[in-house]
Amino acid sequence: MRVRELAQWLGAAFEGDGETEIAGVAPIELAGPAEVSFINSRKAAQQADASAAGCLIVPMDFAGGGRTIIRAEAPRAAFARVIGRLHPPPQPEPGVHSTAVIAATARIGEGVSIGPHASVAEGSSIGAGTTVGAGCRIGANVTIGAGGWLHANVTIYDGVRIGRGVILHSGCVIGADGFGFVMENGRYEKFPQVGRVEIGDFVEIGANACIDRAALGVTSIGEGAKIDNMVHVGHNCIIGRHVVIAAQTGLSGGVVVGDYAVIGGQVGIGDKARIEPRAVLGSGCGILTSKIVRGGQVVWGTPARPLKDYLTQLANLARLPGTLKELRRELAELKRRLSRLEPA
Amino acid sequence: MRVRELAQWLGAAFEGDGETEIAGVAPIELAGPAEVSFINSRKAAQQADASAAGCLIVPMDFAGGGRTIIRAEAPRAAFARVIGRLHPPPQPEPGVHSTAVIAATARIGEGVSIGPHASVAEGSSIGAGTTVGAGCRIGANVTIGAGGWLHANVTIYDGVRIGRGVILHSGCVIGADGFGFVMENGRYEKFPQVGRVEIGDFVEIGANACIDRAALGVTSIGEGAKIDNMVHVGHNCIIGRHVVIAAQTGLSGGVVVGDYAVIGGQVGIGDKARIEPRAVLGSGCGILTSKIVRGGQVVWGTPARPLKDYLTQLANLARLPGTLKELRRELAELKRRLSRLEPA
Amino acid sequence: MRVRELAQWLGAAFEGDGETEIAGVAPIELAGPAEVSFINSRKAAQQADASAAGCLIVPMDFAGGGRTIIRAEAPRAAFARVIGRLHPPPQPEPGVHSTAVIAATARIGEGVSIGPHASVAEGSSIGAGTTVGAGCRIGANVTIGAGGWLHANVTIYDGVRIGRGVILHSGCVIGADGFGFVMENGRYEKFPQVGRVEIGDFVEIGANACIDRAALGVTSIGEGAKIDNMVHVGHNCIIGRHVVIAAQTGLSGGVVVGDYAVIGGQVGIGDKARIEPRAVLGSGCGILTSKIVRGGQVVWGTPARPLKDYLTQLANLARLPGTLKELRRELAELKRRLSRLEPA
Repeated sequence: MRVRELAQWLGAAFEGDGETEIAGVAPIELAGPAEVSFINSRKAAQQADASAAGCLIVPMDFAGGGRTIIRAEAPRAAFARVIGRLHPPPQPEPGVHSTAVIAATARIGEGVSIGPHASVAEGSSIGAGTTVGAGCRIGANVTIGAGGWLHANVTIYDGVRIGRGVILHSGCVIGADGFGFVMENGRYEKFPQVGRVEIGDFVEIGANACIDRAALGVTSIGEGAKIDNMVHVGHNCIIGRHVVIAAQTGLSGGVVVGDYAVIGGQVGIGDKARIEPRAVLGSGCGILTSKIVRGGQVVWGTPARPLKDYLTQLANLARLPGTLKELRRELAELKRRLSRLEPA
Repeated sequence: MRVRELAQWLGAAFEGDGETEIAGVAPIELAGPAEVSFINSRKAAQQADASAAGCLIVPMDFAGGGRTIIRAEAPRAAFARVIGRLHPPPQPEPGVHSTAVIAATARIGEGVSIGPHASVAEGSSIGAGTTVGAGCRIGANVTIGAGGWLHANVTIYDGVRIGRGVILHSGCVIGADGFGFVMENGRYEKFPQVGRVEIGDFVEIGANACIDRAALGVTSIGEGAKIDNMVHVGHNCIIGRHVVIAAQTGLSGGVVVGDYAVIGGQVGIGDKARIEPRAVLGSGCGILTSKIVRGGQVVWGTPARPLKDYLTQLANLARLPGTLKELRRELAELKRRLSRLEPA
Repeated sequence: MRVRELAQWLGAAFEGDGETEIAGVAPIELAGPAEVSFINSRKAAQQADASAAGCLIVPMDFAGGGRTIIRAEAPRAAFARVIGRLHPPPQPEPGVHSTAVIAATARIGEGVSIGPHASVAEGSSIGAGTTVGAGCRIGANVTIGAGGWLHANVTIYDGVRIGRGVILHSGCVIGADGFGFVMENGRYEKFPQVGRVEIGDFVEIGANACIDRAALGVTSIGEGAKIDNMVHVGHNCIIGRHVVIAAQTGLSGGVVVGDYAVIGGQVGIGDKARIEPRAVLGSGCGILTSKIVRGGQVVWGTPARPLKDYLTQLANLARLPGTLKELRRELAELKRRLSRLEPA
């Protein structure tokens, strides 16, 4: 594809040699004459001179001249579209592999691809064009929307409902029992977990993540939410739309997360905490049980507090030995002055 | 089932309309006229008035009158029994699916259900009435007791022994090698992990959890212990009976946990630490290598300390800027008073 | 095997009864007369007297006399070799199980063993003598070197390259998409993850660990690195040779780890941090985005700082209430002295 065509497809303007043939994408430091890369920031702009890339997608105000560029309002987003164009994801052959086991009452949509050794139990339905990878386990009465992609070895328990265009990575487990017990006569008896899981459209869930079913009611993940590897979402959590949760974070039971919240990696959130819309939880922070994080607030640390307070406290701690030494020095000085005044 | 029958089955008393037909359970805020819910606390009692539930299971001293209730000493436990009655877990058809691969020397008990694409290797035995889900991998010489449930895609390595009534959730891995190496000539050589894993009766283990085999000897999980999703139990750990471990907690090698200990989520426990019976480890806390947490103690923070100390330290830190400011103010005041006394 | 033979095979000297027959290995407190164990430290040496072991492998300077011993420079390493000799890992039968699905264009080396319900997609190759466990999913165009071992239910995405002698434990997922999105019109659009994963020779990766593919370029794990259960390695990380990473640690995108670094459990490492060779990250520590940990440095805490500073700060904090009390006491004393001098 030539630079001229790429720019046109993006609805963007190019400068330099529009006839340069582009075969692929690469990071700026590795890109060669037949590859396109991008610059997103001032810092990266300094790399532009050294890059052998055949074409760079650059910000509108990029100043470096003398090379072949495409200008874009959002270079990273434009570049993402170019990757999708030049490296389209593989399209698995539609059809059910001969080793897959599909229950008689399951409904398999048009163009669905089901891989080797996958199984779909009674009463489930798979929407048109969805890919179910090798070894996936779809329980009974599961609904999966159209255009989704379950990578190999995903497990879906009975009754889970999944929207359209959902991507589930390998090893993730959707709908396992929530963690609830009742102590009776010195033993924990199971509090039966008979609720549901609902996953909205265009959600992506990472490898080996776990979304537990509700005890009663529902655990739900809102439209467009993006959940990274090994995240744990406990029973009865309600995750809003377009929420981002980075790897290894854990949400206990009944946590509510508002739309567009951003949650870092390895965060721990206690039972029934409420994270309001657009709040930002810094990586590794700990949110206490029933805590409310206000909309738009940025919190950090354990127990989590506003980022400014957290940084102040860190600075105070770092300064503390010096502060104490100074206080002691001043006290000693006062004592000396006092001694000189006091009668011998 | 009518309220009258439900109460009788629970061995409890009802008030109101015993003929109300109950078809299911629901959380109190969602329950309708054909559903039963429960109240466990004063706080929840305030929700009772607003609830449309056909019946409520309530504490013995519940005061709200005028509706259909069942009184119970432990409403949540009674309600759990009711869920089990009204929503019994699905009973998979006994039998071995035609696509499962069972070694010639494996012994499969009566009424066992083995799902599609599961495999059971040489010399293993599955106790009567146990369910082995689709895609489960049972290694060689594994023993699994009666009445258990392995959900889909569970992996059991060779030689693991599992008791009766054990529930294993999808993706959990029992008996993988412990993490042990010997540095030789600049390379880590494997310290062969030839020990065992033993899982007691009525244990439940969450999705994607990992219980490593011992290097030598045994890793063991005591009867009735409940382990949540993505918990890591390292080689040679000895977990007592009726221990609870919440999600994403990790135990290094050789940790000993006493009976009835309660361990929160995302806790980290160093090698050979000893958690005595009925100790409580707060979520996110860190226990240092070889540390002993005394029986019944409640600890918090990293490094973990008694909850009271932890809270005091948090409060001290929060107060610190004010404390330092006050000390400085008093020093300044003393200086002024001194200056007035000193000869000019 | 007799002690005499064992010593000879180790190239070591024995003392005592060389004719003692040794059938197995055991930890020192459990070993019986037909078992060998080892002593590595002064502390363990005190256990020697009480041990019923038929033979002990001991340090060169071990003083306890009167029993059958083999002296070694590195007893634990010698013992590891003995375990490997007396308890060799099972050798699966070479051959492809009849239920496995191997693509027509896949190349399967000599002596390879492929278990039940495994699948190998188009264009992949499995090196000689490698074991592929039951239910493993090998994507398209994957290369796996000779002499490796994939335990049951491992998932490898398309295009991953794995060296020789690599051990992958059950449930690990290699090559899932990195976590990268672009916000457009209020929605997160996927930043396509079209890079690769390369795993060096003799790497071992634990159960349910996740190694994500690069966005562009490569995520790589150096030769001989050992990675524990449930570790998350994000897109574009470059892990050096002989690096050790303990369980549940997470590396965000683009982290670089130098050779021989040692990373504890539950560590969190922010985007693009750089851990230089032989650095040591204490368990549970947190490394901020873009932070550099210098070669050989030992760091601890969150945010991570040199161990000495961390310990000092802990001590300061513990001492703080006493320090403040003392300062207040001295201030009060000065006030009293001043009052006596001041005119009434």
